[in-house]
Amino acid sequence: MSVRFILLLSFFTIGMLSAQKKNPKVDQARLEKRIFDLAKFGLQENGETERVAFSDADIEARNWVVKTLKGFGMTVTIDAAGNIIGKKPGKDASKKPIAFGSHIDRVPHGGNYDGCVGSMAALEVIETLIENNIKTKHPLEVIIFPNEEGGVMGSRAMAGNLTKAAFPVVNATGYSMGEGIMRIGGDTTKIKDAIRETGSLAAFLELHIEQGGKLEKADLDIGVVEGIVGLKWWDVVFTGFANHAGTTPMNARQDALLAAAKFIVAVNEITNSFEGTQVGTVGRIKAEPGAPNVIPGKVVASLEIRDLSSEVIEKVYQAIKTKTEEIAQASHITVEFLPLDTTSEPALTDPSIQKEIESSAKALGLTFQYMPSGAGHDSQDVSRFAPVGMIFVPSKGGISHSPKEFTSAEDMANGANVLLNTVLALDKKLD
Amino acid sequence: MSVRFILLLSFFTIGMLSAQKKNPKVDQARLEKRIFDLAKFGLQENGETERVAFSDADIEARNWVVKTLKGFGMTVTIDAAGNIIGKKPGKDASKKPIAFGSHIDRVPHGGNYDGCVGSMAALEVIETLIENNIKTKHPLEVIIFPNEEGGVMGSRAMAGNLTKAAFPVVNATGYSMGEGIMRIGGDTTKIKDAIRETGSLAAFLELHIEQGGKLEKADLDIGVVEGIVGLKWWDVVFTGFANHAGTTPMNARQDALLAAAKFIVAVNEITNSFEGTQVGTVGRIKAEPGAPNVIPGKVVASLEIRDLSSEVIEKVYQAIKTKTEEIAQASHITVEFLPLDTTSEPALTDPSIQKEIESSAKALGLTFQYMPSGAGHDSQDVSRFAPVGMIFVPSKGGISHSPKEFTSAEDMANGANVLLNTVLALDKKLD
Repeated sequence: MSVRFILLLSFFTIGMLSAQKKNPKVDQARLEKRIFDLAKFGLQENGETERVAFSDADIEARNWVVKTLKGFGMTVTIDAAGNIIGKKPGKDASKKPIAFGSHIDRVPHGGNYDGCVGSMAALEVIETLIENNIKTKHPLEVIIFPNEEGGVMGSRAMAGNLTKAAFPVVNATGYSMGEGIMRIGGDTTKIKDAIRETGSLAAFLELHIEQGGKLEKADLDIGVVEGIVGLKWWDVVFTGFANHAGTTPMNARQDALLAAAKFIVAVNEITNSFEGTQVGTVGRIKAEPGAPNVIPGKVVASLEIRDLSSEVIEKVYQAIKTKTEEIAQASHITVEFLPLDTTSEPALTDPSIQKEIESSAKALGLTFQYMPSGAGHDSQDVSRFAPVGMIFVPSKGGISHSPKEFTSAEDMANGANVLLNTVLALDKKLD
Repeated sequence: MSVRFILLLSFFTIGMLSAQKKNPKVDQARLEKRIFDLAKFGLQENGETERVAFSDADIEARNWVVKTLKGFGMTVTIDAAGNIIGKKPGKDASKKPIAFGSHIDRVPHGGNYDGCVGSMAALEVIETLIENNIKTKHPLEVIIFPNEEGGVMGSRAMAGNLTKAAFPVVNATGYSMGEGIMRIGGDTTKIKDAIRETGSLAAFLELHIEQGGKLEKADLDIGVVEGIVGLKWWDVVFTGFANHAGTTPMNARQDALLAAAKFIVAVNEITNSFEGTQVGTVGRIKAEPGAPNVIPGKVVASLEIRDLSSEVIEKVYQAIKTKTEEIAQASHITVEFLPLDTTSEPALTDPSIQKEIESSAKALGLTFQYMPSGAGHDSQDVSRFAPVGMIFVPSKGGISHSPKEFTSAEDMANGANVLLNTVLALDKKLD
């Protein structure tokens, strides 16, 4: 190669770099290829992938991610909870890191996009920065959280909320959480070492598929997540009197299922009666004795309420409870609301990060809306110790936790570009 | 004993007999004692009796009944279906028999009165006739039907409706119906021999506990049964779309359980909206996938409608179906009504026998009302080949098929006296 040619090439390269520095873009095809490459870990004969946390496929995929991060020249550590943390130094070592990432474990019989899009986009952002020769002031961290689907394990450990009480829980692989942590390179005896102090991160960003149909229905590119809803569960127990369906006149019945049916209708009506995006669901019901010719004497139904605001959850719950007690009294039966130990508090994202996500979307010419996340995410626990931002991209048909889950390559690239630009904007803006 | 004393005694006896002939009464204490004696067959350590058809207890109780009937001088036969038939000749051998009886088998964890009251009252009527030296014109038959609780087996065989298809059905004893028939002295290969030709009985009467709370609530002694309601069963299948309860907005749901709840409320409202005593019941419900955080995608609920009139059943069903289809359409889900093979046609009792029961009650100074039987009884199948009358006595609290089942000795005696007097009235009236 002649010196003149090298000079020419250098000039050309420098010219391109400076141009791309102003408006760097992720490589959509490369991002999509990584999604497909990741889906190979756990691929079954039926063409679907199974990769529950702690499975062989999960470990192979984690190793591949670690290798990829190292390939980017990042320093990679596994913390005591099994979180994969890839570090890229910033220009100013005194600054706190800007972190981003998601998870690569999947629910049984799940899809290729939940968690994977945010994880592969994090890799894509790093690779784009490298090839554009962009060095941030802040150190960057890519975090791949383990076992999100089995109880946001890694992020919970970082927030200091993972206790030994959770370790015996066995997942679909047959491994307990404790055994699983050891399997993926963590250490259950040092779980507290995974804790990240409040304020130790400048910001955390997570890109995720919406898992609902709002963006698709509104024909929008990006969701600026306002927060992750909290949820409360109850068992609602209706006690009437089981009796012969042939010999007991309609007006002499204490039909627990009829009262439960009125409760289910009331849950829907009351949840809809308030302004807002709260949701109320009855997903489980059991009627006893459960024969077509016996009036049900006892019914247990579940009640779940989710919202960004604990006050709204409480308000909706109280309205449902009051109405249900009226129903019970009128039906000559009794009702009890038994709270279940599955409460999670709402987690709000950082308003200034929301604004940066919005600005990034706008600058990219993408349409967007502010919206809550109805599903739980690692960001929920990270928000306990760091300012958090979340970016949603559309899910086709609102389908999730299913092999039918789908997000287009364009939508993934849109999200990754918003992630990239938000990282860069925060790098400029944050101290 | 002197001749004078014997003469005196004869005079006294003849006087008593002629007095009692006019107004014979059953012996309440003897009837109650027989109920308690019968309850000893199958008595458990916990004080409750278990006597499911084909059990050792059932066979012992049957043998005791046969012995008692023979003790009355009756000719006793067991037909091919295991029906116990005790015959007492009438004064006119050319006349068709007047029959009465019920069953002594019980549901698992049942009570001492269902079936037993009618059976023991039949014995008591025979004994009262004998001690009052009353000889009817018509031959009398006491029929104790086997395995009423397992599908009105004996009466169904008499009506010609018991086929081999029913024989493999196993009950709580572990015996199939076919094995059970052999155990109780029947013969499955000759089951058609049990068929009673239409018109072969002058009348059939059954006394039974009400198994509901209507008589007790109205403070009445006797129910004149207008007929035994027919019933139809359906599986009602609601198909929506299972989805994430957190990410799916209220207005984007296809909640199969919400639609099913509206259906359950509609079944109640529509059944109540027609004049009459029809009943509509949803006793069984299954929601899938059945998790508190998943919107149910599929619900299968049972529907049962009972009435004395097939037309009313059809009318109520059509109204429920129309309304449910509206609910389904408005809920963006689909609904299907799948008829189940458990249909039984209504069986009306004979109006002239109803009148005789009414007259007997009146003559005894008892209060009464006309009413349908919501439960199935052997009389239902007997009505296919003979004019039938049914007499109800109150059940405490309307409780049945339970160890808590109770009917007072006085109420039982009232019913037995109405049975006795109706037999005598029909004997006079019928050809």
